[in-house]
Amino acid sequence: MNSNMEKPYVVGIDIGGTNTAFGIVDARGTIVASSSIKTGSYEKVEDYVNEVCKNLLALLNANGGPDKIKGIGIGAPNGNYYNGTIEFAPNLPWKGVIPLASMFEEQLGIPTALTNDANAAAIGEMTYGAARGMKDFIMITLGTGVGSGIVVNGQMVYGHDGFAGELGHVIIRREHGRRCGCGRNGCLEAYCSATGVARTAREVLASSTENSLLRSIPAEDITSKDVYDAAIKGDALAQKIFDFTGNILGEALADFIAFSSPEAIVLFGGLAKSGDLIFKPVQKAIDDNVLAIFKGKTKLLMSELKDSDAAILGASALGWEMKN
Amino acid sequence: MNSNMEKPYVVGIDIGGTNTAFGIVDARGTIVASSSIKTGSYEKVEDYVNEVCKNLLALLNANGGPDKIKGIGIGAPNGNYYNGTIEFAPNLPWKGVIPLASMFEEQLGIPTALTNDANAAAIGEMTYGAARGMKDFIMITLGTGVGSGIVVNGQMVYGHDGFAGELGHVIIRREHGRRCGCGRNGCLEAYCSATGVARTAREVLASSTENSLLRSIPAEDITSKDVYDAAIKGDALAQKIFDFTGNILGEALADFIAFSSPEAIVLFGGLAKSGDLIFKPVQKAIDDNVLAIFKGKTKLLMSELKDSDAAILGASALGWEMKN
Repeated sequence: MNSNMEKPYVVGIDIGGTNTAFGIVDARGTIVASSSIKTGSYEKVEDYVNEVCKNLLALLNANGGPDKIKGIGIGAPNGNYYNGTIEFAPNLPWKGVIPLASMFEEQLGIPTALTNDANAAAIGEMTYGAARGMKDFIMITLGTGVGSGIVVNGQMVYGHDGFAGELGHVIIRREHGRRCGCGRNGCLEAYCSATGVARTAREVLASSTENSLLRSIPAEDITSKDVYDAAIKGDALAQKIFDFTGNILGEALADFIAFSSPEAIVLFGGLAKSGDLIFKPVQKAIDDNVLAIFKGKTKLLMSELKDSDAAILGASALGWEMKN
Repeated sequence: MNSNMEKPYVVGIDIGGTNTAFGIVDARGTIVASSSIKTGSYEKVEDYVNEVCKNLLALLNANGGPDKIKGIGIGAPNGNYYNGTIEFAPNLPWKGVIPLASMFEEQLGIPTALTNDANAAAIGEMTYGAARGMKDFIMITLGTGVGSGIVVNGQMVYGHDGFAGELGHVIIRREHGRRCGCGRNGCLEAYCSATGVARTAREVLASSTENSLLRSIPAEDITSKDVYDAAIKGDALAQKIFDFTGNILGEALADFIAFSSPEAIVLFGGLAKSGDLIFKPVQKAIDDNVLAIFKGKTKLLMSELKDSDAAILGASALGWEMKN
């Protein structure tokens, strides 16, 4: 028996500001069992870890016990792969540097690794999704923020400090760039996140008198979902917002290609699911901006991980890398 | 005896548009013997390879024979590591795809690898220079053009096609960007290469009436060396040209740090040797532009390879990676 048959499962734990989801996953990427708790209900990280472990053990015992688990992978904001810590995560209740991986390892006796959520998504995509078998690709997560996970030579790029791959914070507009949540101006995230799209909508509505379905919504309430709904109904102004967003993203991707010449760039998250509305302008901007030797070489793909499962799957994929 | 004692040397061959330099190198990075021929004198690549091999064999026979050589490394423009070819190199006499590594391997019976010149410089720096022992760093070569070699997890980043690391061609000025030799606008190379510096000099001289030593030189003849000479003498306008160049380079490096979070960035080439004139504005621009979590972490270093030796050393370092 090989070790995968002895230990046929991994565990994925996805820690978000609101919820913590966890589940048992098999080698094909099927979630065998899963559950969740509220992250924000636990002021003390010890109480939080106890509660996750209690709930997780119940799932484990119903599925052959902890001995069937090859490893645990955790995806968390500000997660540092090298030392298994969460470091100064602004949206979590626990301050400072939290040695989360070793806390789980001690309670459960299962090897545990931790990384940030975008890196976890990339490993998930490489293990179960659109990047299966690829050695060089870039994952871009388009959500409330813009995150990224970079794979080179079949390995995650963590950098010397564990924090590499902050592609949401490359400067894409140096002149009159939008203020970003990070305190600087002109970051990719300020344009291509869900909030960036909503901001573009407000700017475009204010600077024109063009008719639009979006004008029936109070400007400050407009979300990227509203822009999508309007664009799908053929609203020209909403489609322009997607073109603007896609163009900026494509300009950035053309530069990323010059860096690591990936086989593919995988887009993940709400905006990515807008399909051609976003893929067409992104692809056009890549083609218009990429250096000649890279033209037509890098595939632009949509994530193949189901949205509801992606967070657990991504985190769980780290578990396969653990040595028992 | 270990294999390094049996085969204590490697060979480096640096192919430039004008000269081809080659030499025998030991494990400490000492060039034991070297020579060169004119690249442009050989219309047929077969004649060129014959001539290099003839000259190289003379050196080898004077230093223990070909059996002492662990491997041959070649640095060449448009070199593709994966298949050992030069592909469509505009400044070399041979057109199309040239299987140069296998041609040398067949004639000399020594394992041969090939990569582009900037990657060779990075491997040289990692083997003998300022990046010894580093697993994550970026080499920026500032010459006629701007090249780069990226190392992640101790390995060169070649990308899926062998051409990764074209950081001279990320777009650093999207509005009113300078025309670049690659046919696009606003590339880093258009500002931070030797020709970019000369161009900045002409622009600055034309747009002001400020006194400067550079005004004694016909504008079209000004070189980056002239700007350096004037700046060293305290010429304020020449120093402004360095500040402008360094600021743009630092802005770009801040984005590169967000990509791979390197332990160091190593600057190589003529401009890098300008010392504080260029390092100070580059460092300031990195500090002003880098994302907070990376602040103060990445070292900015000058190459430790002697200029006259660097090309052969860089290429030779590839030879140590060969398996006999």
